[in-house]
Amino acid sequence: MNQLSENPIGIFDSGLGGISVVRAIMNLLPDERLIYFGDTARVPYGAKSNETVRRFAQQITNFLLEHQVKMVVVACNTASAVALDDLRARWNLPILGVIEPGSQAGAANSPNERIGVIGTTSTIHSGAYERSLKSINPNFNVISKECPLLVPMVEEGWPEDEVLFGVLSRYLGIFNQTKIDSLILGCTHYPYLRKAIQTVVGSGVTLIDSGEETAKAVVKILRDKNFLHRHSPEDGERRHHFYVSDFPQRFQETAARFLGRPLENLFRVELEVLESYNVE
Amino acid sequence: MNQLSENPIGIFDSGLGGISVVRAIMNLLPDERLIYFGDTARVPYGAKSNETVRRFAQQITNFLLEHQVKMVVVACNTASAVALDDLRARWNLPILGVIEPGSQAGAANSPNERIGVIGTTSTIHSGAYERSLKSINPNFNVISKECPLLVPMVEEGWPEDEVLFGVLSRYLGIFNQTKIDSLILGCTHYPYLRKAIQTVVGSGVTLIDSGEETAKAVVKILRDKNFLHRHSPEDGERRHHFYVSDFPQRFQETAARFLGRPLENLFRVELEVLESYNVE
Repeated sequence: MNQLSENPIGIFDSGLGGISVVRAIMNLLPDERLIYFGDTARVPYGAKSNETVRRFAQQITNFLLEHQVKMVVVACNTASAVALDDLRARWNLPILGVIEPGSQAGAANSPNERIGVIGTTSTIHSGAYERSLKSINPNFNVISKECPLLVPMVEEGWPEDEVLFGVLSRYLGIFNQTKIDSLILGCTHYPYLRKAIQTVVGSGVTLIDSGEETAKAVVKILRDKNFLHRHSPEDGERRHHFYVSDFPQRFQETAARFLGRPLENLFRVELEVLESYNVE
Repeated sequence: MNQLSENPIGIFDSGLGGISVVRAIMNLLPDERLIYFGDTARVPYGAKSNETVRRFAQQITNFLLEHQVKMVVVACNTASAVALDDLRARWNLPILGVIEPGSQAGAANSPNERIGVIGTTSTIHSGAYERSLKSINPNFNVISKECPLLVPMVEEGWPEDEVLFGVLSRYLGIFNQTKIDSLILGCTHYPYLRKAIQTVVGSGVTLIDSGEETAKAVVKILRDKNFLHRHSPEDGERRHHFYVSDFPQRFQETAARFLGRPLENLFRVELEVLESYNVE
């Protein structure tokens, strides 16, 4: 048995959106221990320079490594686009972002080579999904649309009613004319709107949840490396740990809604402490 | 004639919202020179600790002082709530926030002592308007409502249609039952939705634009101190300067829409430079 197999999986995001990836991993790998870091004091990463995002990603990876993680999942689209190569160059353990798995699944589900991508302004303007898709097949026709209202809308937790459908129809109207095969949900908040998005784009479009695809990729990596957890945890054993750099307003309520249950073992890491994890 | 009268007015915000205050000051004082600082690299301040916001406000005030401003307008609700006392204790020039003028106008327009306040999550949870209003009259009944979707909605620049009214009706429905006299727009983005907000709350409610009230207070302070600009600038003279700490996506488009014309003399200040303005 591999020594590392009993160690936890580290997952981080600029905020709470990455909890959708935590949830997807929990569904596929219920026996694994997870350590989540949400950088709620410095969210959003999208407005920051690439250099700053790389430094933040290094600090958090260092923090997770000190907690003996066996792999790191970058559950943040901005950090995946900007910091993944840097992290992989610095450390030897498996490090996975959300963009590659999402693009791979989009590519596999687009027989007519027409793929839609939705995300935050920064993700869409970074062109990261388009680059990733074109590296798989240069013939792909990628139609991208930034949807800045969707993150606050998910955090509000509004019901599926005419207001939500009004906003979604405005953003997704472009895909009615463009006849896409699949639509990549390129933001970890968007899976919470999956049903409504499917209604608006129609059942002919395959929705790709980048977080879910990332969870599948985690399973594959851990299996290939023989790193999968072997012991079923005992009933009631405290397993998962959640760290954040700040407790914003309504944090517990929003996070619990995202996870589908209250967060256990929740801790705050002060920014000064986080900055001490700087890589030199 | 006072020596300082020809110096510019300094205005800062965590981002671009403060441009509504710039616009209001330009309307009332067309001859004044303005220096605006938008901390677009570190927006939003609402998610940051009070200590951090105070440090940012000190750096920017120092930066503005180096540009010989004759007064400082804190056109940011979070910084007004958290940093104003600290700035006033450190420097002797007139320093004005947006909360006091907004509260004063709300108080003056609420004969039945029932006042509504809308703002971002952090402004509403800070309780700053409520404290300010209660210090004017402890009998005031203050009804507050956070409206997190409105800032991204203004930045999107969506038209006044059923989607916008759907979102506004959801947020402002509470004021139909509470019979408020006035509603304070406690966020510098909200004046751009003024007409639609008035439609939703009805003509019986007086809307208070904190930025506009702040502009009126600037006039009063400069007049009282004999600091008003005396020379009409020559035609075509470049007068206003805009500084930002980052150029986010669609910045020029959004800023020009906010100002009603393209931004002149626009410069970026690197974060490293900004941090060198730290107060000891």
